[in-house]
Amino acid sequence: MARGEFETIAALFKPLTRGNPAALGLRDDAARLRISARDELVVTADALVSGVHFLDRDPPGDIARKSLRTNLSDLAAKGAKPIGYFLSIARPRAWTDRRMTAFARGLSADGAEFGVPLLGGDSTSTPGPLTIAITALGTMRRGTMVLRSGARPGDDIWVSGSIGDGALGLLVATGKLRDIAVRHRAALLARYRVPEPKGRLGRALVGVAHAAMDISDGLVADLGHICTTSGVGANVEIDAVPFSVAAKLAIERHPELRKVAITGGDDYELLFAAPPSARAKVLKAARACGTSVARIGQFHAGASKVTVGDRQGGVLRLAHTGFTHF
Amino acid sequence: MARGEFETIAALFKPLTRGNPAALGLRDDAARLRISARDELVVTADALVSGVHFLDRDPPGDIARKSLRTNLSDLAAKGAKPIGYFLSIARPRAWTDRRMTAFARGLSADGAEFGVPLLGGDSTSTPGPLTIAITALGTMRRGTMVLRSGARPGDDIWVSGSIGDGALGLLVATGKLRDIAVRHRAALLARYRVPEPKGRLGRALVGVAHAAMDISDGLVADLGHICTTSGVGANVEIDAVPFSVAAKLAIERHPELRKVAITGGDDYELLFAAPPSARAKVLKAARACGTSVARIGQFHAGASKVTVGDRQGGVLRLAHTGFTHF
Repeated sequence: MARGEFETIAALFKPLTRGNPAALGLRDDAARLRISARDELVVTADALVSGVHFLDRDPPGDIARKSLRTNLSDLAAKGAKPIGYFLSIARPRAWTDRRMTAFARGLSADGAEFGVPLLGGDSTSTPGPLTIAITALGTMRRGTMVLRSGARPGDDIWVSGSIGDGALGLLVATGKLRDIAVRHRAALLARYRVPEPKGRLGRALVGVAHAAMDISDGLVADLGHICTTSGVGANVEIDAVPFSVAAKLAIERHPELRKVAITGGDDYELLFAAPPSARAKVLKAARACGTSVARIGQFHAGASKVTVGDRQGGVLRLAHTGFTHF
Repeated sequence: MARGEFETIAALFKPLTRGNPAALGLRDDAARLRISARDELVVTADALVSGVHFLDRDPPGDIARKSLRTNLSDLAAKGAKPIGYFLSIARPRAWTDRRMTAFARGLSADGAEFGVPLLGGDSTSTPGPLTIAITALGTMRRGTMVLRSGARPGDDIWVSGSIGDGALGLLVATGKLRDIAVRHRAALLARYRVPEPKGRLGRALVGVAHAAMDISDGLVADLGHICTTSGVGANVEIDAVPFSVAAKLAIERHPELRKVAITGGDDYELLFAAPPSARAKVLKAARACGTSVARIGQFHAGASKVTVGDRQGGVLRLAHTGFTHF
């Protein structure tokens, strides 16, 4: 059996940081480099592989946008303002000029929407699937980055937007959920294909949130990451988790999808910790950004694990808790 | 027919820079970001794919080192001091824990040798070949980066070390050149598998060289890149191009390999332009770094193309001028 990605990272890659504090022990969404007396550089890298992170028949422009947006989502969670990105692309023969043109058009639209330029990269052929590696750079005032490791017992657990649409959208993309209305299927699919990084909210939470990350591996797994790095436990009330109209309909029809929604990946919403005293500030920041937020539970001083309870006092058993990557 | 990589970059990717000067029009080895009143950040990204940039049966530690070193070589050519790197790796199932451990050991050795920490990255599975994308960051005094675009008519063309060992090493790796001695085959193979980035020389050439890049696509192709970005032509004297003992022996036995040596890739030597008035400085810098350098021709005001001449006044016809990537 191969080690899981987390074990690989801890055992093999963490020593490669040579104890450099900028790496944050490879336990955060991004690295933090001091570049001047005033500012720090926040750097994140995410790779996407066809058949793993998207489907080869997805619209090329959407694949491009998802690749960029997953990186912008990491910067958003840290509170950083993006300044540009580097693209390495390994292109199979089947990716014709026509598909590449559509791919570039997607990047162009998002570059304009988020104001981020391509700054460099590499392009190579591959005998394998389309593989896209993006490294995104952002800046913020020195010492203000919102880490994964800052959650404290008693902090509220918050999420932005709605949870599970990405995972349910993947089911739609693979031909499932045909028993819900076309417009709801389309909404879920769109969430899977083109996530919405929460940059404005992330920046508004600097100085308010104790800890934050974006949800890419699934709510439960990513909350587990905050617990592990912060040394706290977490209780989630499943009934407080915000679901979209489409997700609610899918869950009504297939109750087992509730677990899929909270453990599946690809939400790219913000997950953050803030003290109860900051509730009004959080709500005000969210309102100012036009983003909804929901309080879904609380961190506690117990063991670093995540418990998901329901209204009846029951505890959900979760076999699969999410994807893993660093 | 698919566009060549250069056409793709010019047509599709260059507009994505949104005119940001840090991108240098995607026509250099690295991007240049102003980060403070004193310093600039130099950033380069290179991707390597099994079967394209290395062979799957190459020692995993060598694959790792080559991946890091190709990036360090770009920073070297710019004169930047490396500060760290980001690694995105797409790992096929056949890359077992054992191979991954050897891979990490290679990175660890080079991290120590060059003093560069891993700062972050991503690890994912892939149904395709091992794919490694590294983004390396360096710093230098603002305004001092050695560009591709600075060569002037009358400048000497210089290279470090010896040319063609990488391309001949690839022949060895694929079972060819069996008619030269084992130790020479081993020397060529080592050059193909583990390049030697010329960081010290690159930094010593800051303020001396008018233009520089590292040779990855092959001497002729990369010299062509300097010509295009600088708006100059270049004449190379083939008899002045430095070959290693092993390469000389291979070329003696197979004269057609001389063209392979100057057009093949994977040298990772420095190619640079400096005025004749700086000859003594260049030689002094090289001596101080323990690196050999050779003057192989001259830039001129003519069309942006490369001519390779021999001692008899003949001109070599070169059908294939090298690999292409950005």
